[in-house]
Amino acid sequence: MKCYREMTKEELLAERKELNERYEKCKALNLTLDMTRGKPSPAQLDLSNDIYDTLKTGYLDNAGQDTRNYGVAPGIAEIREVFADIIGTDKENVFMGNSSSLNQMFDAVMRAMVFGEVDSPKPWSQVEGRKWLCPTPGYDRHFRVTETMGFELVAVPMTDNGPDMDIVEELVKDEKVKGIWCVPCYSNPDGVVYSEETCERLAKMETGAVDFRIFWDNAYVVHHLSEDRNEWGKLPDMLSLCEKAGHANRVYEFASSSKITFAGGGISCFAANKENMAYTKKFLNAQTICTNKVNQLAHAKFLPSAEAVYRHMMKHAEILRPKFEACQRVLNEELGGNKDLWHWTDPKGGYFVSFYAMPGTATKIVTMCKDAGVALTPAGASFPYGKDPQDTNIRLAPSFPVVEDIEKAVRILSICAKITAIDKLLEE
Amino acid sequence: MKCYREMTKEELLAERKELNERYEKCKALNLTLDMTRGKPSPAQLDLSNDIYDTLKTGYLDNAGQDTRNYGVAPGIAEIREVFADIIGTDKENVFMGNSSSLNQMFDAVMRAMVFGEVDSPKPWSQVEGRKWLCPTPGYDRHFRVTETMGFELVAVPMTDNGPDMDIVEELVKDEKVKGIWCVPCYSNPDGVVYSEETCERLAKMETGAVDFRIFWDNAYVVHHLSEDRNEWGKLPDMLSLCEKAGHANRVYEFASSSKITFAGGGISCFAANKENMAYTKKFLNAQTICTNKVNQLAHAKFLPSAEAVYRHMMKHAEILRPKFEACQRVLNEELGGNKDLWHWTDPKGGYFVSFYAMPGTATKIVTMCKDAGVALTPAGASFPYGKDPQDTNIRLAPSFPVVEDIEKAVRILSICAKITAIDKLLEE
Repeated sequence: MKCYREMTKEELLAERKELNERYEKCKALNLTLDMTRGKPSPAQLDLSNDIYDTLKTGYLDNAGQDTRNYGVAPGIAEIREVFADIIGTDKENVFMGNSSSLNQMFDAVMRAMVFGEVDSPKPWSQVEGRKWLCPTPGYDRHFRVTETMGFELVAVPMTDNGPDMDIVEELVKDEKVKGIWCVPCYSNPDGVVYSEETCERLAKMETGAVDFRIFWDNAYVVHHLSEDRNEWGKLPDMLSLCEKAGHANRVYEFASSSKITFAGGGISCFAANKENMAYTKKFLNAQTICTNKVNQLAHAKFLPSAEAVYRHMMKHAEILRPKFEACQRVLNEELGGNKDLWHWTDPKGGYFVSFYAMPGTATKIVTMCKDAGVALTPAGASFPYGKDPQDTNIRLAPSFPVVEDIEKAVRILSICAKITAIDKLLEE
Repeated sequence: MKCYREMTKEELLAERKELNERYEKCKALNLTLDMTRGKPSPAQLDLSNDIYDTLKTGYLDNAGQDTRNYGVAPGIAEIREVFADIIGTDKENVFMGNSSSLNQMFDAVMRAMVFGEVDSPKPWSQVEGRKWLCPTPGYDRHFRVTETMGFELVAVPMTDNGPDMDIVEELVKDEKVKGIWCVPCYSNPDGVVYSEETCERLAKMETGAVDFRIFWDNAYVVHHLSEDRNEWGKLPDMLSLCEKAGHANRVYEFASSSKITFAGGGISCFAANKENMAYTKKFLNAQTICTNKVNQLAHAKFLPSAEAVYRHMMKHAEILRPKFEACQRVLNEELGGNKDLWHWTDPKGGYFVSFYAMPGTATKIVTMCKDAGVALTPAGASFPYGKDPQDTNIRLAPSFPVVEDIEKAVRILSICAKITAIDKLLEE
């Protein structure tokens, strides 16, 4: 593939014509392909189909408690232990929730809004002009939570090591900045694993708000694509790190089994240090008698240890790898010769490939793809308020479609990326 | 049994001595009996042991949607329909939650605190001196929710037809009064079924607050003790009633399968009219992608219609009836001759027998029972702030223990009731 920037206008027009023919041919196929959301595929979900068979041996947990009945608010010990091992903390710090960790994050912000944090001068709802840091690109549903609660969303650029800490350290001096969203392992959508230095600086930094909180969403903590454990993203235990730095109350951790077992029927985990947990339980215990313990038991029997989870995740990886490889293959084939015009990630885990088109073309590409039957996440979705100032980022979610469909979809994306790029170059 | 009020001091002292001997004998048995909470018994929970077997036929709902994956935020249609039928509304008004309806109530108040209701002048957290009506005796965990959120709890006496509506109508003129807790069918703990007139007056009454809400907790809507359907508590459809009265936004309804299938692993339902639901979904959809749909599917397959639920509940009733009968039998035997000193309910459904001791003796009775190894709900638990001004009510929960234990426990309760009554009479 020839470098576009070195082509003459005539060459570009010829290339444009050829691409247009390809695009029209694709359109004529009347495809309906969906690469919008990070949903597990049916084959992945099938891996856990037998999870409820485990209940045939009974509904008692290891402590002899009947999971079918009320009680045991923080969840049964054996599953708290599995999640504690996964995220690298102690089970005493873990409180199990229902199927959605997002729900636990939303609830945590709501509690701070109404009651304040344990160290808050006043409830956050009373803080005019409250702000929240959003490493971007990031997870749209995170941003929506704090937007819904009236926070001004402040974008922080991502680097290969996590959020740009020079900028973060500057921004958090503002006492109106109450927190930050973090997906530290295989970030959504860039697939970045936060470096140890980033984690340490997050734990150590001086914040204007005494009740600053890091929402540490470990959504992809065991979602590795490689069989080689040396390649797995690894993170320090953030709870300990914050404690050592003298900011013990700073971090809330979240994780879930949504992409381990069932996205529509898993369990979730909330972790906090002792003081935060004691304070939070005052409200959690008013909110509910217990979350779904039967499902916790099924999970504990089906995946009785962190090691069992790792092995299970390697079955997911086997299904996911060819899909991620298909993305890379087609992108390299179609776009490999013009890495100055666009680039994309090749993550070691997580659920996304993050594609960076020529600035100012992402929206157009997504629209063109849509017209050709390929649904992509709206351009800008990974940015606060859905607005990518560079109009460059497109999040690709290859987990759900089959390889053949991914190839088709990414090929169409590539064609559209090239067409829009040529149009842009011709304008220049 | 002789009437205490007609006995001489000597007769009372002799009776007191005999009772004391019986009490000491009971103590010597070193019993540990628990009548504290309305928990289903293992035999009841066993009725649903096969619920997850239903998933062997697949994880797709009737619309062909994969319940294992993300999406379908309001829940799958077939289970929304079952709950809609049970509570007497349309499935469009129903949003399915996780295992705890209390959680949904807590969340509903939280939303009003932070965002206000759709018709609120301002969020409830900004209303100084906000108040909440608590028909008493009532459910302690209801009261705790609004207490936690800073409402002043205002007690309203219960009658045989529901809360005393003359008092309610007066109190709601105060614009600080934002809502009322209601358990309209087999109320906790009195077992009262609200009369049609009560329901109508609740729907029609003029409230000072334009955003007044009835929290209609239909916790025991299908929890009948009688086989005879004519004896079942029946309620009008409160959503329609409020709409007809020109207060369409007034009521939120709740129900759950906690005491139908599993208290520790059921599903819950939230129902609201169109305007409330559209407004609430703005926040629900920020809070979570979906609740546990796999569990919804298991429930829908296990209990595919309201009729199936009714039949299932009759199996519960078969287990529960002998327990409620045991309560009545022992109470009548021991205390039947002195109905002027105490009385108790004989409910047609629900989970409790409400015992009214001689005023000023309930706390003492509960303490004496505890010393004899019988755990009862703390006296006053069913009242705002845990304080029964008359110190008379004791909530008995006969669902969990076996009949033999219930007989023992209620006998000890009766002995203590008599001892404390005699002491009281001797003081007079």
